[in-house]
Amino acid sequence: MILKDLYQKVRKTSVDICAPLQIEDYVIQSCLEVSPPKWHLAHTTWFYETLVLGRYQANFKEFNPEFNTYFNSYYKSFGKHWLRDQRGILSRPGVGQIMEYRNYVDQKVLEFLNQSPSQEALEILELGLHHEQQHQELLLMDIKNIFSVNNVTYSLNTQPASTQRTDGSWTFNEGVYEFGHNNDGFSYDNEGPYHKSYIHSFELEKSMITNGDFLKFIEDGGYQKELLWLSDGLTYIKENNINSPLYWEKGSEGWNEFTLYGKQPLDLNTPVSHISYYEAQAFALWAGKRLPTEYEWELAAKTLQEDTQAFLEGQTLTPTQSLKGSLWQWSSSSYDPYPGYSREAGPLGEYNGKFMCNQRVLKGGSFATSNWHYRNTYRNFFYPKDRWQFCGLRLAKDA
Amino acid sequence: MILKDLYQKVRKTSVDICAPLQIEDYVIQSCLEVSPPKWHLAHTTWFYETLVLGRYQANFKEFNPEFNTYFNSYYKSFGKHWLRDQRGILSRPGVGQIMEYRNYVDQKVLEFLNQSPSQEALEILELGLHHEQQHQELLLMDIKNIFSVNNVTYSLNTQPASTQRTDGSWTFNEGVYEFGHNNDGFSYDNEGPYHKSYIHSFELEKSMITNGDFLKFIEDGGYQKELLWLSDGLTYIKENNINSPLYWEKGSEGWNEFTLYGKQPLDLNTPVSHISYYEAQAFALWAGKRLPTEYEWELAAKTLQEDTQAFLEGQTLTPTQSLKGSLWQWSSSSYDPYPGYSREAGPLGEYNGKFMCNQRVLKGGSFATSNWHYRNTYRNFFYPKDRWQFCGLRLAKDA
Amino acid sequence: MILKDLYQKVRKTSVDICAPLQIEDYVIQSCLEVSPPKWHLAHTTWFYETLVLGRYQANFKEFNPEFNTYFNSYYKSFGKHWLRDQRGILSRPGVGQIMEYRNYVDQKVLEFLNQSPSQEALEILELGLHHEQQHQELLLMDIKNIFSVNNVTYSLNTQPASTQRTDGSWTFNEGVYEFGHNNDGFSYDNEGPYHKSYIHSFELEKSMITNGDFLKFIEDGGYQKELLWLSDGLTYIKENNINSPLYWEKGSEGWNEFTLYGKQPLDLNTPVSHISYYEAQAFALWAGKRLPTEYEWELAAKTLQEDTQAFLEGQTLTPTQSLKGSLWQWSSSSYDPYPGYSREAGPLGEYNGKFMCNQRVLKGGSFATSNWHYRNTYRNFFYPKDRWQFCGLRLAKDA
Amino acid sequence: MILKDLYQKVRKTSVDICAPLQIEDYVIQSCLEVSPPKWHLAHTTWFYETLVLGRYQANFKEFNPEFNTYFNSYYKSFGKHWLRDQRGILSRPGVGQIMEYRNYVDQKVLEFLNQSPSQEALEILELGLHHEQQHQELLLMDIKNIFSVNNVTYSLNTQPASTQRTDGSWTFNEGVYEFGHNNDGFSYDNEGPYHKSYIHSFELEKSMITNGDFLKFIEDGGYQKELLWLSDGLTYIKENNINSPLYWEKGSEGWNEFTLYGKQPLDLNTPVSHISYYEAQAFALWAGKRLPTEYEWELAAKTLQEDTQAFLEGQTLTPTQSLKGSLWQWSSSSYDPYPGYSREAGPLGEYNGKFMCNQRVLKGGSFATSNWHYRNTYRNFFYPKDRWQFCGLRLAKDA
Repeated sequence: MILKDLYQKVRKTSVDICAPLQIEDYVIQSCLEVSPPKWHLAHTTWFYETLVLGRYQANFKEFNPEFNTYFNSYYKSFGKHWLRDQRGILSRPGVGQIMEYRNYVDQKVLEFLNQSPSQEALEILELGLHHEQQHQELLLMDIKNIFSVNNVTYSLNTQPASTQRTDGSWTFNEGVYEFGHNNDGFSYDNEGPYHKSYIHSFELEKSMITNGDFLKFIEDGGYQKELLWLSDGLTYIKENNINSPLYWEKGSEGWNEFTLYGKQPLDLNTPVSHISYYEAQAFALWAGKRLPTEYEWELAAKTLQEDTQAFLEGQTLTPTQSLKGSLWQWSSSSYDPYPGYSREAGPLGEYNGKFMCNQRVLKGGSFATSNWHYRNTYRNFFYPKDRWQFCGLRLAKDA
Repeated sequence: MILKDLYQKVRKTSVDICAPLQIEDYVIQSCLEVSPPKWHLAHTTWFYETLVLGRYQANFKEFNPEFNTYFNSYYKSFGKHWLRDQRGILSRPGVGQIMEYRNYVDQKVLEFLNQSPSQEALEILELGLHHEQQHQELLLMDIKNIFSVNNVTYSLNTQPASTQRTDGSWTFNEGVYEFGHNNDGFSYDNEGPYHKSYIHSFELEKSMITNGDFLKFIEDGGYQKELLWLSDGLTYIKENNINSPLYWEKGSEGWNEFTLYGKQPLDLNTPVSHISYYEAQAFALWAGKRLPTEYEWELAAKTLQEDTQAFLEGQTLTPTQSLKGSLWQWSSSSYDPYPGYSREAGPLGEYNGKFMCNQRVLKGGSFATSNWHYRNTYRNFFYPKDRWQFCGLRLAKDA
Repeated sequence: MILKDLYQKVRKTSVDICAPLQIEDYVIQSCLEVSPPKWHLAHTTWFYETLVLGRYQANFKEFNPEFNTYFNSYYKSFGKHWLRDQRGILSRPGVGQIMEYRNYVDQKVLEFLNQSPSQEALEILELGLHHEQQHQELLLMDIKNIFSVNNVTYSLNTQPASTQRTDGSWTFNEGVYEFGHNNDGFSYDNEGPYHKSYIHSFELEKSMITNGDFLKFIEDGGYQKELLWLSDGLTYIKENNINSPLYWEKGSEGWNEFTLYGKQPLDLNTPVSHISYYEAQAFALWAGKRLPTEYEWELAAKTLQEDTQAFLEGQTLTPTQSLKGSLWQWSSSSYDPYPGYSREAGPLGEYNGKFMCNQRVLKGGSFATSNWHYRNTYRNFFYPKDRWQFCGLRLAKDA
Repeated sequence: MILKDLYQKVRKTSVDICAPLQIEDYVIQSCLEVSPPKWHLAHTTWFYETLVLGRYQANFKEFNPEFNTYFNSYYKSFGKHWLRDQRGILSRPGVGQIMEYRNYVDQKVLEFLNQSPSQEALEILELGLHHEQQHQELLLMDIKNIFSVNNVTYSLNTQPASTQRTDGSWTFNEGVYEFGHNNDGFSYDNEGPYHKSYIHSFELEKSMITNGDFLKFIEDGGYQKELLWLSDGLTYIKENNINSPLYWEKGSEGWNEFTLYGKQPLDLNTPVSHISYYEAQAFALWAGKRLPTEYEWELAAKTLQEDTQAFLEGQTLTPTQSLKGSLWQWSSSSYDPYPGYSREAGPLGEYNGKFMCNQRVLKGGSFATSNWHYRNTYRNFFYPKDRWQFCGLRLAKDA
């Protein structure tokens, strides 16, 4: 697809994702991690305006200079920014004005593309598209959280999927392998450099853990068995009274789960989602296994010819069994720099590098990830406590 | 005015106050004290539905039973309620649905009024009207706060007023006087019983303290003079970096104040507003005077034939010099029960009595108070730290 | 008693109160309200050194200039002071050095008294003695708290007292009465000026509420009956999981209470102690009565010839039934200035006036109060949430 | 050295470290990370009592069963334990009683050693010795913190050392190397299993960064250059007003540093210590280098015949230039399990494994580490924010 078409497609998808929202829904920050949907729509626009047009388009005039404060997420390179935990008190600019902002920037970007821009500018524009696709996933995560508080069903005329589980594991042999992105095509800086690492023999399960599996853990008192937990995890679940995955609720008739199709009886065959790293780790210990490292997962993904259909372009907003899509999978790896990585100076260096502390890598993609956005080398990252993202777990063990 | 007309007028005023809002503005809780405007519109409606129709109208059917959770403010008598600090994460019901709710209840109330309801029911309906007028004032306070964050001008086609100051004081002699409401007409339970109290001779200033007066306090280092402050007040201003009234901002050209007419250069003649009890007390000590007690203020108000024009029906949303309206005035009195007061059992007992701790009485009314809602015996109350209400100060001293 | 003897007696009592302590006990700040015992011993000494010797004795040389920072409690007039919540991290000066400090200052004070000091100096010295007696009470409160954490019995070779209850009430007629201290002898500034107030007819119970009475409240679900509580009180007990008086503990054999005689089975006849204002108020509402105002209590105390034996010089460290001693009694009155009160400039003005916000008056005295320190006009004050002081409750009602 | 002698030597060292303390110093918890010195003395004793005698000595009688609650640090396997942040409110058992406890357990251990105990028991006893040596280091860290608050000089009749810096780097070639402990002699479980890892070519500096180096970073505005910092680190230093290493203080005559020899003018040649991982990382980025991984550091230590004299048995309590001792060195590695590691069931599994989240590995040892306790494979770990340990930094770069 040519870049211009791709740009328009990506831009349209963000707006489409918000189709089920009322104006009031666009404004809500339902918890500290969530950003209001209208903020995502504006911030992704700000990215092109500031990092592409503002730097490469002569005589470019910003839509509104104040937006730089509101819609800069965290780039110290671009001056003061609105505090993340205060995004939910911004009623203005309103949704209509943000749509105008999007249209203004879109028009300017399309004009810019007609002017034979430099390769450097095009690369940053491409980064902007990937950036927007990340935010599409955040949009859907955040909308789910907002809708769970307000008990709203998100409906895109799709159906919950039926799922299938495959028993057994894949086995991999020890040795030196190469990892990371080889610079053939787009990648984020944190995926490189391409480098060798020594891998020990291991097995990776063919299926992700299901709601039914996780329910057994709960019914066996897993949340109360203190020896299963990381020390920080135990403190966290106690302080926050956590005793089931996010969005699970025990009713008089049994467990329910809030989904993008509304509140539903818990489907035992569906892969479990919305668990923290702490819960994933405790489950693995309880099951006598462990989480895979990010290298192990990547080796499997590069080796296996597995489906990649369970992405945003798919037919359902329910997790299904899939290696590469459907749900991000917690790895056991801390989110640290790869050998030889160095943070770029300036704003692009703020994109990934400054977050390399206290977080864990998740591999794969989810039903909210665009197919075009997926890479085997992708390193997603969240704090161990985070649960509102579309994540699940797949177990491994030493072979 | 007959009750039916009065009901319709009060109901219309709440909606009119919100006329300058966009949909997005209705949803915002800009700080913990603020409630989203749409919440006020719904809660005032819930009050009639639950305390009048639900108890006195046969076969009444609620508009939506879930609203009882969302829009019950704090009445333990009516079961669980949504937490106050979580009101800003409710996008639903939306503004449109709340307007339908208002229309539904209004129609049912008007039908009910045609059925010769009991005196008891009528009295609670009247309470509901006063309740809604309190919330009209809260609406305007909260909108001002939301608009200050978003830098929006609230315009009702009125003009800032020019103000006038009168020097000098009124003097009152010591003796036993009677205070509180004598049950001739409507009052809240906290205004009674009518009772005697011994008053010592005192003087009350004819004007409220102005922005110009307060600026002198600031310029004299008042916020840094630790001996002027109550111990709790000193802790509070230090922890919150408070060194001017709320909405004041020092720019390169001097002080500005955010008003309902937008950000304006500070008008030195305007009565100072948006100060906490702590600031009022420190100012009074700095000025060598003190705040009046609630009894002193009430005695003056009952004695003097002063203007009562500076109310919601007035021509401006700027404070002006006025004894009884324009700005609520901090008294030095703790909000405690009057002699002989006892808390009514049931929901009405929750209206005032349970708040009689840690708060201070404010007397008068403000430009956001309805004239019909004003009483000399009115006991408004806020925490000593609160500053977002339309409050100012008037000094007194021993005679 | 001549002042010199009195000085020596008061000074000795502070040290005597600490006799049961090990060195380690002197250092502990068991909760934010508590100060380490050695801090009390040093702070009371600092008071004479700074407010008497430092200001009235020529060529006086401080024991150690750094002590001014450590042992100034909160007097902004004397510069920076160590933060209250950090007193428990001071190991130095040690107990031995503080005893040397006491001896040094005592010797200097006694020399000073031999030099015919001015009346002003003598008055501040007298204030210092009262100040130290307040701290003797704090010492015992704080030691009790420290010992409760460490499960240590405080034994002064005394016995728990047996108690007696008297049914019935005293009745008082309405009218104008005079209150406060008339300046005949020592008083704190907050007890004056002597002034008139109008009192409505009331009854005051002859006995304080007992543990047995309070247990009935608990067993009737008093802590769960939300309508009984002040709004702030309900929040407070929920956030802190409070469901019995401080130091009560439900064991397998029934309720126990930690006392200065160690953990004991709850004595139902003993007056209940260590309850907050919130609990006192909820109990009163449950009992269909109310707390007395500070004026009502003072009128009773001035009128009645009641025992004053249950003070520090008594035979027991158990509360007994007594009007004026044994336990401080919560009044319903907010701690506000009396008519005509003005805060003195300088350090003495910091003694009482700056605390006149958010606190409640307690009247009487306790078994930890010196008899010489007691006055009918005494206005003790604590925050509504405070429970570690020796306080109880006596009910009143309108007559 | 035979085990019995070693036991006695280790036990004596803990007590010797406390020689400069007054009784009051033993009780203090000067910040949340610090434990009172007497707690360390008791906890190390509890370890032998509970994990050795209680499990392997027939008919063993505990010194005092309550001590299990007070002196269990965090072993969920042994039931409820006193909360870590409440250790500073324990005055009892006092220092004398804890010394009796030590003597009691020492006598029982020595008797036990005379009874030909099982190999398993001996291994846990050996673990206990290493455990106590860890706490000796904690003791000195915590005493330094307590003494800094109280401005006390810790003197063991030693002198500050003069230091020497060596310019240049060591270079290492890429390849597969083996890491971790090979089970020849004692190690903690987290040091194994012995395993291969692929290393990329790198250089490691011969000297640690000095105070003088770090001062240049400060003077260049390093703490204010937002782009140098990890996102979490920037938040942390802003919230805690951190702008120099812990114990540095800028006086009118220049920078001072609180040391175990008291407050001293900053010595520019001494290796910088008491910096967080965040500060280490920002410094490295500023210097155009990076921190070494734990593997890189271990490879250097195994390869080089460097001094190991700067340990607890040395002549000074000042950091000097040394690879393996003197100061723990922040690695860039997250504290995660080695390939093949599995947490042991039961209490020993709680020793290390449950802390493998959110922490970073430090390599080496310090002047507070016993020589016998040092291993190249040692994995010390602290949170990125921690600064009170004896840590410094040594830079690396890609070769």
